[in-house]
Amino acid sequence: MNSKNILVVGSVALDTVKTPFGKVKEALGGSASFFSASARFFAPVAMVAVVGKDFPEKHLRLLRGLGIDIGGIEKAPGKTFRWTGFYDYDLNNARTLKTELNVFQDFKPKLSDFHRACRVVFLANIDPDLQSYVLGQMKNPGLVACDTMNYWIENRKKSLVHLLKKVDIFLCNDSEARELSGEFNLIKASQWILSHGPRFLVIKKGEHGVLCFSKGSVFSVPAYLLEKIFDPTGAGDSFAGGFLGYLAQAKRLDEKIVRKAIIYGSVLASYNVESFSLDRLAGLKPVEIRKRYREFEALTRF
Amino acid sequence: MNSKNILVVGSVALDTVKTPFGKVKEALGGSASFFSASARFFAPVAMVAVVGKDFPEKHLRLLRGLGIDIGGIEKAPGKTFRWTGFYDYDLNNARTLKTELNVFQDFKPKLSDFHRACRVVFLANIDPDLQSYVLGQMKNPGLVACDTMNYWIENRKKSLVHLLKKVDIFLCNDSEARELSGEFNLIKASQWILSHGPRFLVIKKGEHGVLCFSKGSVFSVPAYLLEKIFDPTGAGDSFAGGFLGYLAQAKRLDEKIVRKAIIYGSVLASYNVESFSLDRLAGLKPVEIRKRYREFEALTRF
Repeated sequence: MNSKNILVVGSVALDTVKTPFGKVKEALGGSASFFSASARFFAPVAMVAVVGKDFPEKHLRLLRGLGIDIGGIEKAPGKTFRWTGFYDYDLNNARTLKTELNVFQDFKPKLSDFHRACRVVFLANIDPDLQSYVLGQMKNPGLVACDTMNYWIENRKKSLVHLLKKVDIFLCNDSEARELSGEFNLIKASQWILSHGPRFLVIKKGEHGVLCFSKGSVFSVPAYLLEKIFDPTGAGDSFAGGFLGYLAQAKRLDEKIVRKAIIYGSVLASYNVESFSLDRLAGLKPVEIRKRYREFEALTRF
Repeated sequence: MNSKNILVVGSVALDTVKTPFGKVKEALGGSASFFSASARFFAPVAMVAVVGKDFPEKHLRLLRGLGIDIGGIEKAPGKTFRWTGFYDYDLNNARTLKTELNVFQDFKPKLSDFHRACRVVFLANIDPDLQSYVLGQMKNPGLVACDTMNYWIENRKKSLVHLLKKVDIFLCNDSEARELSGEFNLIKASQWILSHGPRFLVIKKGEHGVLCFSKGSVFSVPAYLLEKIFDPTGAGDSFAGGFLGYLAQAKRLDEKIVRKAIIYGSVLASYNVESFSLDRLAGLKPVEIRKRYREFEALTRF
């Protein structure tokens, strides 16, 4: 068993993004990229994803240079998944202009023995049937987390609820928690979701921080305040990377550890939004992570 | 000098409110009422306000029964200020159906010697010229705080900015901070506001908690999570009551004390929204305040 190894299964994309602070064209993006660039600070990470023949070699070099195991990135005939979107001053809401799934449409990963033996697995936002298919290939993982999006709640709710039974930690945003549970109130929404399987529910609220629910406990942490949020793309996945990375290297999964992990996730997300693509995460130093963790303490202690 | 006494100058109103959980007609409301019913747990409070000849005696009895000094509530010829509004499931936004200022329109309080000698003064949301007029009557107060609303920012900005020079603590909500400063980013907005006078800026974000800015420090605390928010009316003023009440009994005004005061403010606001009008605050016990303070610790500690 690869005792601390994290497997992430998700997207690698070329993002064209405009924000009030600038724009970027066909930059490296995708849930698996942001997740890995964050989680690598804590534990070894292996990516399983698909790109097209047009995928720039420099992006693969970048990921490899960050120490990420990219042996599981398949190069398929066709074009790479592309997302085009923009953000207004209300940076909490991405507006999608164009989604071109391309090779991602037929993504159906077969895991290698190495991948199957990873102890921690993050099923990033893909079709819940595919998430279950991947999870079914794992050899007795110690920690399973998954993310989703409104599209799957609306179109694959049954599959998603089925998957929930098999995950330890479910991550989603506040509107997804409401939509999935049919409850507007987040306490009630959390009760519904926890009753369907996960031991921990992590609700990401963007600039309003993060909530974590478990049996008998609620944790709430505000977001780090930034003067400039350059690009919120990938905030949720870089959060998940810092969060699961910290959990992967921890000795146990309990409330106290999960709370610390949420701060590390928030730290990584706060750095990620300071630039486009993986620019900030790629150059980030461990000392900066520790510094911002202490800033979170200063921000919230009373 | 009335060493711990708090003076609040603001409105006493008859509120007709509808929320997803019920409705209430001509219930006791107004900024000074919610403030006083909260602040009284920490220090003696005196209200200065105006009501009409139609104001029900039972409401005055209630306030007096809570130990609030209502000698400064003038009964003027005419009708009491009335507010009619409703809230949708998004309880963060009040929708006003009708505002009848009535006797509140000509409110121009002359303070008694007793009121002038109070050490702490809260200038609730009224015309900033009137706030300055009241403040000008105070005998060297030790702590001055004020609130405002978008209407005054749009129509009396110069007067409000003038008032800011003379207040220690400015309270407003996030959209007001943005509108007043002309900065969307709250760090930049806070820099603008703090540069115009106040030592502390408290930004109320409703269900997303509270931010407090001072020179070189930021404090962020999430809101208490409730399964049922019956009626958000008065949340901001009950926050201000708990907040300034705690500060009034504290020995000094520093960052550490202000942070604790913000938690007490949040505690009082969280109780207030559990019922219509002052119902919950009127029956609240000190032991419940201490209990929820500890719950805030459990909610936020990592």
